[in-house]
Amino acid sequence: MTHTPVAIIGAGPAGLTLSHLLHQHGVESVIFESRSRQDVEETVRAGVLEQGVINMMRQTGVSERMDAHADIDDAIDISINGSRTRIDLKELTGHQMAVWAQHEYLTDFIAKRLADGGTIFFETQVDDADGYDGDKVVIDYTTADGRHEQMTADYVVAADGSKSPYRGPILEQDGAVRSRHEYPYAWFGILVNGPQTQKELIYATHEEGFALISTRSKDVQRYYLQCDPNDTVDQWSDERIWEQLHKRVDGEGLTVQEGEIFDKSVLKFRSAVTDPMQRGRLFLAGDAAHTVPPTGAKGLNLAVADVSVLAPGLVRAIKRGDNDLLDNYSAIAVPRIWRAQHFSYWMSSMLHSVPEQGYFQHRRRLAELEAMISSEAGRRYQAEQYVGIDLPKFEV
Amino acid sequence: MTHTPVAIIGAGPAGLTLSHLLHQHGVESVIFESRSRQDVEETVRAGVLEQGVINMMRQTGVSERMDAHADIDDAIDISINGSRTRIDLKELTGHQMAVWAQHEYLTDFIAKRLADGGTIFFETQVDDADGYDGDKVVIDYTTADGRHEQMTADYVVAADGSKSPYRGPILEQDGAVRSRHEYPYAWFGILVNGPQTQKELIYATHEEGFALISTRSKDVQRYYLQCDPNDTVDQWSDERIWEQLHKRVDGEGLTVQEGEIFDKSVLKFRSAVTDPMQRGRLFLAGDAAHTVPPTGAKGLNLAVADVSVLAPGLVRAIKRGDNDLLDNYSAIAVPRIWRAQHFSYWMSSMLHSVPEQGYFQHRRRLAELEAMISSEAGRRYQAEQYVGIDLPKFEV
Repeated sequence: MTHTPVAIIGAGPAGLTLSHLLHQHGVESVIFESRSRQDVEETVRAGVLEQGVINMMRQTGVSERMDAHADIDDAIDISINGSRTRIDLKELTGHQMAVWAQHEYLTDFIAKRLADGGTIFFETQVDDADGYDGDKVVIDYTTADGRHEQMTADYVVAADGSKSPYRGPILEQDGAVRSRHEYPYAWFGILVNGPQTQKELIYATHEEGFALISTRSKDVQRYYLQCDPNDTVDQWSDERIWEQLHKRVDGEGLTVQEGEIFDKSVLKFRSAVTDPMQRGRLFLAGDAAHTVPPTGAKGLNLAVADVSVLAPGLVRAIKRGDNDLLDNYSAIAVPRIWRAQHFSYWMSSMLHSVPEQGYFQHRRRLAELEAMISSEAGRRYQAEQYVGIDLPKFEV
Repeated sequence: MTHTPVAIIGAGPAGLTLSHLLHQHGVESVIFESRSRQDVEETVRAGVLEQGVINMMRQTGVSERMDAHADIDDAIDISINGSRTRIDLKELTGHQMAVWAQHEYLTDFIAKRLADGGTIFFETQVDDADGYDGDKVVIDYTTADGRHEQMTADYVVAADGSKSPYRGPILEQDGAVRSRHEYPYAWFGILVNGPQTQKELIYATHEEGFALISTRSKDVQRYYLQCDPNDTVDQWSDERIWEQLHKRVDGEGLTVQEGEIFDKSVLKFRSAVTDPMQRGRLFLAGDAAHTVPPTGAKGLNLAVADVSVLAPGLVRAIKRGDNDLLDNYSAIAVPRIWRAQHFSYWMSSMLHSVPEQGYFQHRRRLAELEAMISSEAGRRYQAEQYVGIDLPKFEV
């Protein structure tokens, strides 16, 4: 039976980044991914990279395409009923952010992993991962051509997204807790072939709801509109979409640029945290452990933060038999997750209109936005959380 | 029939400060107060003065006792489960605050008004104020010795507290709105004969609830404990109070100093805003228009902010026939009120424990506190709102 030090389930941001960081320190791993490479690389997902993630990509040789093609933004706009305030992230924090779609990030890391001789089994289904309570993990998997195989591993990391079945055994432990929060709104997302409205993101609040203006390229735009969580795609005609985008965003000489809408989808809003993220030799990373609403753009960044603790933890354990960092994985990762949950909740609550919450909350929310944008300290407090705190750094 | 340019109902912070500021600009007024002078001066109420209020007292000659006896604090402490973080208001904002009980403030302004020849009718009940929709207001009142009298006024200001009957006619106007919010907690307040725990305020959050440590003098302390809004005084024995104060506040070498509890009361938590605050020649000021929960210590300060707009507005109207500022009283005062509502709500939500809100909100709240206190920008954003924005300034 073959053996790998670290079996990683899922070639998403957490899994690929972990495999890459382990390799940087001479620890090999195998990634099992149920989807095809093409599917992973072509499933369009938004992505905003914190400075810490940008730095990590640059320092470990994965930034070439991102540096060449990503929009590096110095600022975001907060728009209140059409009146915009610039939050100058760079001036306020010294940090920038990169608008680099998640599938582009995955494309970069897949290419890098393969160039470095890494192993990614695409179209390969992990049927079972067992033995994590003991000395060795056994992975049962079905290959792309339907063969049942087994592999042993010292550790297994479930980085297989928000529906991960590996939360189950983790949550059976004494004191383990799953926290969930549902939001009274969702986002209606569209992809548009058409000109940019603005290079930098616009977070717009309006009586009729939130809207977000973002851009993929000079020719492809990504717009979002607050909608009801139960809305379906057919409730939003192109006409209704443009009408609402204009109403919620236009102002001070800026007009949302229309184009051909080629994709419509409803994004659910929820928060979830699993604590701890470990059981024996089994670890959770990224969405498998936690979900954040999209407002704070923290999903990918949190996944990278997780594995920035997990990778050195695994390296120390595997190369030196030192389990201290690995055993503290949850204790180190969870507080950052709650910070991101708070920030995402705060941004969401401040920017979305929820008439059911009543007049007091409506006016209070606008007063909070005013307090925040009218104060340099307020803008900096927001910007610091938006650009993110540095990634955890541990010697290996 | 006697006449006064401005009839003021209520000798609280709004009414007395208004009368004083009007006098500074040569406009006389009459204050009607249903309680006795002694009662007004001896009803113990907490008070924290923003820098703008301190400055106003100094600039207009009412600060002598405050300067001599108030605690001028540079900082507050935020305590999380016994671990304290200093919010250095002075360093962060350049401003300080004075712990000066409301009844002391009233004592100062009563003395000053009387020294300046002002008129305050104590134990005098205003039975009716009418005519505010026309050219002249008629005040019907009952004097301390039971006589029914009338006085005319150019303007009437209802500064008679949160139960003011004069909100009624204001809210009957087209588009007028009253906004209310109830909180799921209250404060159990005690007055203690005993030594100081700490000179500077401690805002303490703990799994069992919020507590606030404040001081009146070296020998009299004012402590508060989060309690249920339906709690009564007899549910809180001295033993239970001290046990809870120790549990919620003690830590890092600090111990709540016990003493003889000589007063117990339950303070309700609510927010309310009336908009507009005017109808013709009738104006609302202070608690008559708005209520804030005590967490932000904004009540007295907001009352002073109201009359900092109203006084120059009345002076311009009376002396120059210029009604522009007076007609914009609500438009200028209301945004500041919402800012204070937000701040009070924010501080309250961050510091109070509400198990019914669930685990997610509990952890998110602690993450928000951590984000705020661990960031210089976060502390400054909090401190700026705590010390308050400058009082509105208008030439007369």
